[in-house]
Amino acid sequence: MKISTVIGDTLADVKRLNIVTGGVAELPEGAKWLLRGLTSNERYLIRMEKDQLLAKQPALGRPQATCAALIPIRKTASWWGLAQDERRRIFEESSKHVKTGLRYLPAVARRLHHCRDLGENEPFDFLTWFEYAPSDSVAFDELVAEIRASEEWTYIDREIDIRVVRDGA
Amino acid sequence: MKISTVIGDTLADVKRLNIVTGGVAELPEGAKWLLRGLTSNERYLIRMEKDQLLAKQPALGRPQATCAALIPIRKTASWWGLAQDERRRIFEESSKHVKTGLRYLPAVARRLHHCRDLGENEPFDFLTWFEYAPSDSVAFDELVAEIRASEEWTYIDREIDIRVVRDGA
Repeated sequence: MKISTVIGDTLADVKRLNIVTGGVAELPEGAKWLLRGLTSNERYLIRMEKDQLLAKQPALGRPQATCAALIPIRKTASWWGLAQDERRRIFEESSKHVKTGLRYLPAVARRLHHCRDLGENEPFDFLTWFEYAPSDSVAFDELVAEIRASEEWTYIDREIDIRVVRDGA
Repeated sequence: MKISTVIGDTLADVKRLNIVTGGVAELPEGAKWLLRGLTSNERYLIRMEKDQLLAKQPALGRPQATCAALIPIRKTASWWGLAQDERRRIFEESSKHVKTGLRYLPAVARRLHHCRDLGENEPFDFLTWFEYAPSDSVAFDELVAEIRASEEWTYIDREIDIRVVRDGA
């Protein structure tokens, strides 16, 4: 397991990551941190993109996808102050967030969790979880590098990149 | 104070409403229910609409605005399953949610609170709070009736209409 701080405050180093489904109110015993998020509706996807993703995206939990990444990010106040059409333009017309992601399907499975509207003091806005096979690690690094080079990412003020390997893999 | 159920499950009748800012974890003593929400970024507003609203919308707390309405709503799973462009089309191009609201400014002050992404089991998706002077009560009823007659409102499966008057008014 490797935790890299891409931008902003770091997150304490830990040896293992546990994924818990359902509500966890308190920091579990022995844990150094707890990140919470929930799946929600999409905010930017138009119908054609949603259909393309649904057609190509793999499920989580594939046996061969023993590598995973958890990437918590927070966007700036100036991002959240933009109007919907301005955020959409940056997200896709400029940054090609969906178009880039589609090129890495079905290799990379992905689930987006929202945190920003959980409460007033959440440390991140989104937690994205990715799963891929070891043979797709280089491709996954390319995907992350492409997204990080986009205009959208100029609005990120905290990002942590956590890489894990499934127990026993 | 008057609580009317517009559609869906009712909410227990109460005599008074208290507005609390900041987190409230538990049901306060003597309370029959507690609704929680938080302000967030807009999901559908384009820049021109956002600027028009910012220019015309009054602040909360005007002395003469002694009437208020709290309208909790929940939207259907089919609404949340729509893509962003489909929801936007219904919200504004068909239902004219912003255009209608603008016609009632600056008479009606409004604040939208989001609840859907607070957790998995929230009873409502949004809590909207409105304030207006008694002389604008008829206009406010017209606004509410116009919005309820829209295509957007065919996706509402729970709505409560709570009208209150400021203490001492």
